[in-house]
Amino acid sequence: MATMKVHGSVISTATQRVVACLNEKDLDYEFVPVDMGSGEHKKDHFLCLNPFGQVPAFEDGDLKLFESRAITQYVAHVYTGKGTQLIFENPKKMATMAVWMEVEAHQFDPLASKLGWELVYKPMFGMTTDAAVVKENEAKLTKVLDIYEARLAQSKYMGGDAFTLADLHHLPTVQLLMGTQCKKLFDSRPCVSAWCADILGRPSWAKVLAMKS
Amino acid sequence: MATMKVHGSVISTATQRVVACLNEKDLDYEFVPVDMGSGEHKKDHFLCLNPFGQVPAFEDGDLKLFESRAITQYVAHVYTGKGTQLIFENPKKMATMAVWMEVEAHQFDPLASKLGWELVYKPMFGMTTDAAVVKENEAKLTKVLDIYEARLAQSKYMGGDAFTLADLHHLPTVQLLMGTQCKKLFDSRPCVSAWCADILGRPSWAKVLAMKS
Repeated sequence: MATMKVHGSVISTATQRVVACLNEKDLDYEFVPVDMGSGEHKKDHFLCLNPFGQVPAFEDGDLKLFESRAITQYVAHVYTGKGTQLIFENPKKMATMAVWMEVEAHQFDPLASKLGWELVYKPMFGMTTDAAVVKENEAKLTKVLDIYEARLAQSKYMGGDAFTLADLHHLPTVQLLMGTQCKKLFDSRPCVSAWCADILGRPSWAKVLAMKS
Repeated sequence: MATMKVHGSVISTATQRVVACLNEKDLDYEFVPVDMGSGEHKKDHFLCLNPFGQVPAFEDGDLKLFESRAITQYVAHVYTGKGTQLIFENPKKMATMAVWMEVEAHQFDPLASKLGWELVYKPMFGMTTDAAVVKENEAKLTKVLDIYEARLAQSKYMGGDAFTLADLHHLPTVQLLMGTQCKKLFDSRPCVSAWCADILGRPSWAKVLAMKS
């Protein structure tokens, strides 16, 4: 089997998403660090892997992929014989799981990413947090988490009765917000809180956190 | 076979995406108009179909789905025996197609939607276009279309050698921008321009436009 390669940065949530997936699937891979501080992701050798100049990029033999959620879907669909099943075989179950994957991508991630930028990365880079942006996005996140609470009251996991990509895709941004004032929004909702504890406690995620330390 | 239902609005790009897909697959469906002007999409009977209160929602027998790209994927994967094949069977081809579906969702759609809001919907609702927002997003769209031009110089369609969901998902927002000053950004790039003419010329899309008139 050809070696898989992940080109990325351990502080990138999109990179963490792909690494968590490979850990769940118990697959060997080579991690190739991309030095974003020096703008390596905007240089020609990286743009050949991803013309948008964003981490991560992925190689499996001669196949080159980018966009974290396309990579995780490839891995989950192709390496079905390895590690955790992260998708369903039943087409209707799969369709419902796909709905909640889209929810993560379009309803949750934009808010979580904006809040993470304001509350984690801006302070890290010596920039000033914009309180108005935080307030606006916290209000929107509250509404999304109310819907998550209702969903998780009926379904153990976001995509259905088992842990799937619909949960896994949330891991990096949920972890990011757990280190901020937004933690209270998750903790105050019992089903959301139990779901967070469950998914953040997975060994695949502990391995991702170990890479950062 | 149970009748499929699309609950939506003909002026919603997400609704148009689903209807275009059903047309390509040659499937019968019932269109249930949602009166967004009176806020019907925020009322309980619609929130049972989509808790986020956004059109479209979809029913196929007892299966209820929302998020336009989850609906199109379900239709393409389940009704493989009908109409146009909108996905690939080969896993590597499918993975590359998935990359460009993610590109549409994360790189193209946010810009196209912001520009459509400023240049089409705001004037339609008697609101004032924000020139600075237009300028910023046109600059970003220019960079994305440069990457599209390079992609389409190598590949007849966005996702590979055949028309797939990776192209179809673009239809509503490309159509929207073709009626604005952004048209020049598409027209000035030969491969992008040829691709637009090809996909906008599909009979499935003509049927969507006919619903609006």
